Amino acid sequence: MTVCQVSFLPDDVSAFVSEGTTIVDAARAAGVYINTICGGDGLCGKCRVIVRDGEVRTKPTALLERDEIRLGYVLACQTTVHGDVVIEIPPETRWEGRPKLEHEEAHRFGDIALRPGVRAYPFDPLSRKWFLEMPPPSLADNVGDLERAFREIRRKAEYPIMQTGLYNIRRLATLLREAGWKATATLAHRGKTVEVVQFEPGDTSGRNYGVAVDVGTTTIVAQLIDLVNGATVGTQASYNSQVWFGEDVISRIVYCVEEDGLDELQRYVVSDINTLVSALVEESKVDLADVTYLVAAGNTTMMHLLLGLYPAFIRQEPYIPTANHVPAIRAAEIGVAINGRGLLQCMPGVGAYVGSDVVADILASGLHLDNRLSLMIDVGTNGEVVLGNSDWLICCSASAGPSFEGGGMRCGLRATEGAIERVAVAPGGRIVYQTIGGGHPKGICGSGMIDLVAELFRIGYIDKGGRFRTDRHIPNLVNGADGPEFVVAPAGESATGKDLTISETDIAVFIRSKGAIFTAAEALINHVGLTFEDIERVFIAGGFGYHLDIVNCVTIGLLPDIPLESVHFLGNGSLAGARMALLSTAALQEANEIAKRITYFDLSTDPTFMNRFTSSLFIPHTDVEKFPSVVKA
Amino acid sequence: MTVCQVSFLPDDVSAFVSEGTTIVDAARAAGVYINTICGGDGLCGKCRVIVRDGEVRTKPTALLERDEIRLGYVLACQTTVHGDVVIEIPPETRWEGRPKLEHEEAHRFGDIALRPGVRAYPFDPLSRKWFLEMPPPSLADNVGDLERAFREIRRKAEYPIMQTGLYNIRRLATLLREAGWKATATLAHRGKTVEVVQFEPGDTSGRNYGVAVDVGTTTIVAQLIDLVNGATVGTQASYNSQVWFGEDVISRIVYCVEEDGLDELQRYVVSDINTLVSALVEESKVDLADVTYLVAAGNTTMMHLLLGLYPAFIRQEPYIPTANHVPAIRAAEIGVAINGRGLLQCMPGVGAYVGSDVVADILASGLHLDNRLSLMIDVGTNGEVVLGNSDWLICCSASAGPSFEGGGMRCGLRATEGAIERVAVAPGGRIVYQTIGGGHPKGICGSGMIDLVAELFRIGYIDKGGRFRTDRHIPNLVNGADGPEFVVAPAGESATGKDLTISETDIAVFIRSKGAIFTAAEALINHVGLTFEDIERVFIAGGFGYHLDIVNCVTIGLLPDIPLESVHFLGNGSLAGARMALLSTAALQEANEIAKRITYFDLSTDPTFMNRFTSSLFIPHTDVEKFPSVVKA
Repeated sequence: MTVCQVSFLPDDVSAFVSEGTTIVDAARAAGVYINTICGGDGLCGKCRVIVRDGEVRTKPTALLERDEIRLGYVLACQTTVHGDVVIEIPPETRWEGRPKLEHEEAHRFGDIALRPGVRAYPFDPLSRKWFLEMPPPSLADNVGDLERAFREIRRKAEYPIMQTGLYNIRRLATLLREAGWKATATLAHRGKTVEVVQFEPGDTSGRNYGVAVDVGTTTIVAQLIDLVNGATVGTQASYNSQVWFGEDVISRIVYCVEEDGLDELQRYVVSDINTLVSALVEESKVDLADVTYLVAAGNTTMMHLLLGLYPAFIRQEPYIPTANHVPAIRAAEIGVAINGRGLLQCMPGVGAYVGSDVVADILASGLHLDNRLSLMIDVGTNGEVVLGNSDWLICCSASAGPSFEGGGMRCGLRATEGAIERVAVAPGGRIVYQTIGGGHPKGICGSGMIDLVAELFRIGYIDKGGRFRTDRHIPNLVNGADGPEFVVAPAGESATGKDLTISETDIAVFIRSKGAIFTAAEALINHVGLTFEDIERVFIAGGFGYHLDIVNCVTIGLLPDIPLESVHFLGNGSLAGARMALLSTAALQEANEIAKRITYFDLSTDPTFMNRFTSSLFIPHTDVEKFPSVVKA
Repeated sequence: MTVCQVSFLPDDVSAFVSEGTTIVDAARAAGVYINTICGGDGLCGKCRVIVRDGEVRTKPTALLERDEIRLGYVLACQTTVHGDVVIEIPPETRWEGRPKLEHEEAHRFGDIALRPGVRAYPFDPLSRKWFLEMPPPSLADNVGDLERAFREIRRKAEYPIMQTGLYNIRRLATLLREAGWKATATLAHRGKTVEVVQFEPGDTSGRNYGVAVDVGTTTIVAQLIDLVNGATVGTQASYNSQVWFGEDVISRIVYCVEEDGLDELQRYVVSDINTLVSALVEESKVDLADVTYLVAAGNTTMMHLLLGLYPAFIRQEPYIPTANHVPAIRAAEIGVAINGRGLLQCMPGVGAYVGSDVVADILASGLHLDNRLSLMIDVGTNGEVVLGNSDWLICCSASAGPSFEGGGMRCGLRATEGAIERVAVAPGGRIVYQTIGGGHPKGICGSGMIDLVAELFRIGYIDKGGRFRTDRHIPNLVNGADGPEFVVAPAGESATGKDLTISETDIAVFIRSKGAIFTAAEALINHVGLTFEDIERVFIAGGFGYHLDIVNCVTIGLLPDIPLESVHFLGNGSLAGARMALLSTAALQEANEIAKRITYFDLSTDPTFMNRFTSSLFIPHTDVEKFPSVVKA
């Protein structure tokens, strides 16, 4: 077997791999990050790299232009190495600075403060430290050490079922005596029981922390919470490294099933979480051993992969997860590095496609406690729609595709540094944009696409079908391989040295995404015999959520045409809900109740869905009367 | 460092040890078993071996006679090797056939059937298997796999708190589908909660076993119980290998504290239990994986050593155990080999010197439910005395020393093969004895000593002070190093080739043991303002218990002079109580209540104790009026 050295530019790092290895696998081995969306099937064209030297073999692809092929471009997933090679990764293919731990990113994906009016749950964290001053034993008071400690705890709070492990019992006798009968017990809730997860000498009751984590398909956000006073100490975010193995949940499930990759995917997400937690405790000067509880929320597949649960049956009819209500486990059982005896609780989910992130969203929004009819939309690769009030809750989910996270389009990019996140087209056709980080643009992220499509429609450059109007002059329109393309940023401005453009194909892909979410909302509302006019409040959730221009969302028909004042940005509701549960056993209990209350509506069983979806593939919609404000504008 | 080969005869096994190692340690390294009682302090003289060849250095000792020293006898614990040596282990120093797994032994130390009239607890074993036939999931019934299994379990029994581990959840999806939604859940009680310890495909509900174990200081007895029908499948017994490190609990505690030997002692007892369990499942053709629960009872130190709890504070005033109520643990946590997810529950104890064996005794006797006043005596190295009825329970413990288990006397021997267990002195002085196993005698065990002392007293060979009478002719009396010795078996009959004798010193040691137990009972009764005449029932517990001649026990003053018909032999109440708990959660709950109800009376605080004890050092007692039946005889 021949070993080939694969060197990657511009970082100049190498891996030694056997002949015939793909460039994607070689990059993984070298620890170099290459954009992949389709999981290596040669479908997304995101993993383009330039072969600078050496012999490779590559499969034919329609995703590269002739000019590019001439310059040495190949798709990394479709190309194998056959000798020592030098590969250049162009800017649009790179991930910048992974894991992304900068504050700007953390803020972007972090949650917002709870909205006023949302019910406050009693402060009763899942983990508490009690300082115990025990009377020393005597012949007259000679109960065992464990019974003495438990007796003291019960003086503070009457927990019906208290448990502890042999690990702690073994150390107790020496610990209590050395500590002069002054010790601190950490009590962590585990379902309806309470576990003493550790005893510490002396009074450490002032140092107790928890972590709330939103495990997104694309992004993971973790927040360090002070469990003594409820304060948020810090927030960190990074990509979910599993993205290497496919952009959406389905491709990850496939990787688990076909490539036996469950352990691998689990290790990646656990390592991401550990990196975030470690950054959080470092920046806050908190001892990792004082982090005693972690609450995670995410879609059902993400929770399965975090816990190492086999996810295959999530995607096979009748779509059954292993568990929606997973009991608390010891975090160390899955390799999550907090206190070695600390617990980890996943928020409860509803079903295969309505995960604990949605339950957390609802908990954070409080919509389940209000008698007004609310609609909640969680915008993401998988879009979830919840409808209901204090009496009932119904939910459906729709696969929107990766458009909102920069996938599926030539110049699409995740909401990362260099992505165009806001766009306006000034009269006369001048393009004004803003990039994340303020530098030269590398691509366009979801919020940028919403703005761009809305603006192009408003200014009359594209028609309701998403096609460039041929009846008028459109500046910045060039002819590309696929037909006309609109130049958002010319080569001179862009970080890639090439024009950043969108084509009619890109717009069509994007319209399908927005149409899927709108249709899910519409079908759900119709299913219960209501109309959009009955909706009194709309919540937009998702890390994405509060970067959106609400008028533009209505303009393109992503959101229904409702009064702007009834729309509320929830931000990262998944993270907010996890944090609420961490801070209040009552909130976790309520999440369990919410999960049980929700009715799941399977869109695939709705006969009206396809017609509705087809009608939604316009800007804003076939039936413009549904969007009077857009007509008026 | 010089390495010496130490060969042991007659087995001809060797160990290589460094120069200066004691013969006891070399024997341990070779896996050869040498009797030690004092734990290697050179005090008991039990470890006598013969140096056949090679250089050794030995400390002076008064425990060997000049003749013996001339023949090469040394104390193995006081002798170090300084070159290759050959050591012969004489029969009285050997342990025969350890671990002792023969049926005869098992029966000897096994329990007896529960007495008629003892309350029957409802059949509700600590571990149960439920066969679940689940409806396969559908779009209309799409709960998660775990929720589906739990739903089915709840149809059979409503457990308020059901838990399970990640290990089982991970395997569940594949297991249920491969099994066609027919699976068996094993539910094990853990305090007030129930844990699903495993799921198995298909219907295995007919195969579920538990083990009850009495962890004695000297002997360990294990019983395999069919948890489907409650039947006892088999019983096995062996020595507690910790005996190597000292005969009584104090010397073992000292070994843990001074020699850092806790791990070592724990490994020994766990290995003993594993050997017994493995023998039980082999003889019954039971799959070890079908053994899902183990309940252990024993004195507080034994439970500490089993669990690896630091026992030092048990012997320091105010005598505090780490825990009297230890929660159930996974058996595998301490290395006990049953089902890898099976649980282990220690019966609850009362305090440092009143352990879970006493609680189990009481549970098995039912004395705590009866309004008649009962006295219970557990005869062992540590003797425990319980007094009470359905209204109150009080208990004390007395260190009787190892006499009843053959320790502390020149010809004393454990109740093992070759031990004289029954003795009668026929008129004319002819000695009639019976050995365990029927072969030539090697020594005299506790029950043999009771008979012998009682008979020698009855026939008038010894006086009430335990001295040989000089005013009459005593056949079989010879002069030994310490003075007169009575020959129980002459050299021609004995397996050791030497006379088996008892000296006045031996008798004095034995009288101290019986006196300690009698005094404990008397002091306890007096403490509550009663007399022996108030006692309506007497229970004798201990593996030892039903080999005793009750008349002889009264004759020597071990038991008070009470009507024979009020005496009940409980046998191994510790084992019986553990088995009852295994078979009934209500019985375990009752044991917890018993443990909480018992008042502990510390004899060391009783000002009358020393006077009473001194008075008891006679046969039967200074105050013979306390023993009218003996006077009459």
